[in-house]
Amino acid sequence: MEINLDKYRNLSRHLGREYINLNPIQRGGILPVEAKKVIYEYWDGYSVCDYCGGRLDEIRTPPIYEFLEDVSKFLDMDISRPTHGARESKFIVMHSICKEGDYVILDENAHYTSYVAIERARLNYVTVKNDGYPTYQIEPERYKEAIDRLEDEGKSIGLILLTHVDGSYGNLSDAEKVGKIAKKRRYPFLLNCAYTVGRMPVKGKKLKADFLACSGHKSMAASGPIGILSIREEFAEEVLRRSKNHPKKEVELLGCTSRGVPLLSLIASFPYVVERVKKWEEELKKTRYVVDRLEEIGFKQLGMKPKEHDLIKFETPVLEEMSKRNKRRGFFFYEELKKRGIGGIVPGVTKEIKISVYGLTWEQVEYVVDTIIEIVEKC
Amino acid sequence: MEINLDKYRNLSRHLGREYINLNPIQRGGILPVEAKKVIYEYWDGYSVCDYCGGRLDEIRTPPIYEFLEDVSKFLDMDISRPTHGARESKFIVMHSICKEGDYVILDENAHYTSYVAIERARLNYVTVKNDGYPTYQIEPERYKEAIDRLEDEGKSIGLILLTHVDGSYGNLSDAEKVGKIAKKRRYPFLLNCAYTVGRMPVKGKKLKADFLACSGHKSMAASGPIGILSIREEFAEEVLRRSKNHPKKEVELLGCTSRGVPLLSLIASFPYVVERVKKWEEELKKTRYVVDRLEEIGFKQLGMKPKEHDLIKFETPVLEEMSKRNKRRGFFFYEELKKRGIGGIVPGVTKEIKISVYGLTWEQVEYVVDTIIEIVEKC
Ligand SMILES: Cc1ncc(COP(=O)(O)O)c(C=O)c1O
Ligand SMILES: Cc1ncc(COP(=O)(O)O)c(C=O)c1O
Repeated sequence: MEINLDKYRNLSRHLGREYINLNPIQRGGILPVEAKKVIYEYWDGYSVCDYCGGRLDEIRTPPIYEFLEDVSKFLDMDISRPTHGARESKFIVMHSICKEGDYVILDENAHYTSYVAIERARLNYVTVKNDGYPTYQIEPERYKEAIDRLEDEGKSIGLILLTHVDGSYGNLSDAEKVGKIAKKRRYPFLLNCAYTVGRMPVKGKKLKADFLACSGHKSMAASGPIGILSIREEFAEEVLRRSKNHPKKEVELLGCTSRGVPLLSLIASFPYVVERVKKWEEELKKTRYVVDRLEEIGFKQLGMKPKEHDLIKFETPVLEEMSKRNKRRGFFFYEELKKRGIGGIVPGVTKEIKISVYGLTWEQVEYVVDTIIEIVEKC
Repeated sequence: MEINLDKYRNLSRHLGREYINLNPIQRGGILPVEAKKVIYEYWDGYSVCDYCGGRLDEIRTPPIYEFLEDVSKFLDMDISRPTHGARESKFIVMHSICKEGDYVILDENAHYTSYVAIERARLNYVTVKNDGYPTYQIEPERYKEAIDRLEDEGKSIGLILLTHVDGSYGNLSDAEKVGKIAKKRRYPFLLNCAYTVGRMPVKGKKLKADFLACSGHKSMAASGPIGILSIREEFAEEVLRRSKNHPKKEVELLGCTSRGVPLLSLIASFPYVVERVKKWEEELKKTRYVVDRLEEIGFKQLGMKPKEHDLIKFETPVLEEMSKRNKRRGFFFYEELKKRGIGGIVPGVTKEIKISVYGLTWEQVEYVVDTIIEIVEKC
């Protein structure tokens, strides 16, 4: 066996340290220094299991049990468990409360992971369409229509799923309205909060959610992969059912889920996350400022207005035009940004771009905007 | 909402740094310094996804794609994927190649996670019994009998599962023999290598394995949670089937599994793991030395002899006796060890103990043995 092992030595990452990273999926997962210190302590293997009595979620040293109780309070839900991420949270819900072949009703803006979780759980689905270009808004009333249609056809509906904020347009959907519809028709309601919990205030019960799927690495300043599944009491028995053979173990969690350092990073970042969520309005100001300034040079913000989330999708005909004249084609924009210390834009794509300035200082936000304007005006 | 956040500040772990940890589940997951450096680089959220084209296992910066190719070579298998751990690897196999209600044949020494994975995948099982006290050995021929019995009853067998080394006795089972039986009878064969791959040489094809379930945090010097699923070509289509909606995404992996720092720690530790596996004979010497010395003072090693794995289970009537005379009852042993800088023993239990000296220096091994003898002779 000949393996060249040198390529695994001294791996380093540049984007995080040396560039301002505008990739929306990266901005909510940056660790505060507190979390980095804890990683030092817990990076070895199963280190969180030193004082385990048989269940990860009951461990008190480190304070996993207390943390999960506090997360439930923070989210205004009843019971929480760590998972490997939002997608795993969604699959756990589907696999435990739906019967094979059941229908999931979900929004057209749903993340691919919702579809893949449905497929893995062997379920069917119907989508509630958005209102198309340029807003792509999800109208809650359409959930009612979808329910009516499926009921008329005699189909079994297992779950109502809404993407709280989607990853394509950064639209904040009206979860409470969808929740009310679900409640009224007596279907369980799963809210995918991968892009909201940890960034903005989310109160599950107020939104009539039975389940929240959250993403630690995406929006809760944690090291990937880590998520939270937060549920309402009445579903605990089904979702957290115990093994017949090993009665302490929760089947759907395969006994324990996130047995390692990502969970510790999530816990250590929690005080920071609780604080930052309170500053959401300031983040929205930054986002809207970017939209205002860049629309002046011909970018067009897609999705709902004004922005209620930091993910911004722009249609950028001006970049598209420029790429036709540039010998580097679409890559000029990526490369010019890179020269100026800005990363996280998809190389080569100029028709549309997706960015976020979440968590940047105002000074950095100004720099990003000024730099983009400079490139557009000079190149 | 009133949450006391102070308890999440300055979390620290003592067992890893300040004690020699004899807990067998901890010894194979200790990071070498190379891995610690990489964690620094990649601890932020989704940082491994900077240059992702849509699939975790195809990322080349960091070198995930190359790593998975090399892991397949290292294990003498065809295709490998990162998972969240051995249990998740087992579930993925069961959920993709078995039909609901199928039977899994597994050894009586199987880890609880095998049973829980079976239950989650809605399968049935029969166990192949071990030969009881004191060896608890699994006799491969009994797999044949189990197959015969199920076939006679007209039951559908979905999978043959063997625990390569179990977590109760540290017995190394004869995987090749079981593999041959499985092949001959044309059933897929999954070998649970949570306690072997990364510690000792394992060559999947030689053992006739169709699937290897491996555990990074347990035996491959990685931060939890991380595992590997390594498979034979002929099962790739079924196990790694693509989504209908998102044809790039693998359904059973929910698109991507270990999207974060545990995977990077596994990669960075790989050169170290490749080397340490070559020194397995030396580890066995340490283990057998411990057995020899402690049997002299009345400990009795359970499981097969001589040891072919570092996990040692002792029956300890001598400690049991002492605990009856001691006012601290069973806790005296744990406490006396702790005073002398040794941890990882279950507090209060004296009837049987489970320890491992894997990866300790000879000097540390001597110290551990001498200390235990001193406690037994003096207390
Ligand atoms: C809306 C939405 N849901 C789910 C996910 C997936 O999150 P996770 O990696 O925690 O499964 C994403 C990730 O981009 C997302 O944007
Ligand atoms: C034999 C065996 N299999 C599986 C596991 C579980 O490994 P993982 O945490 O990677 O799922 C263990 C853990 O103790 C084990 O001893």
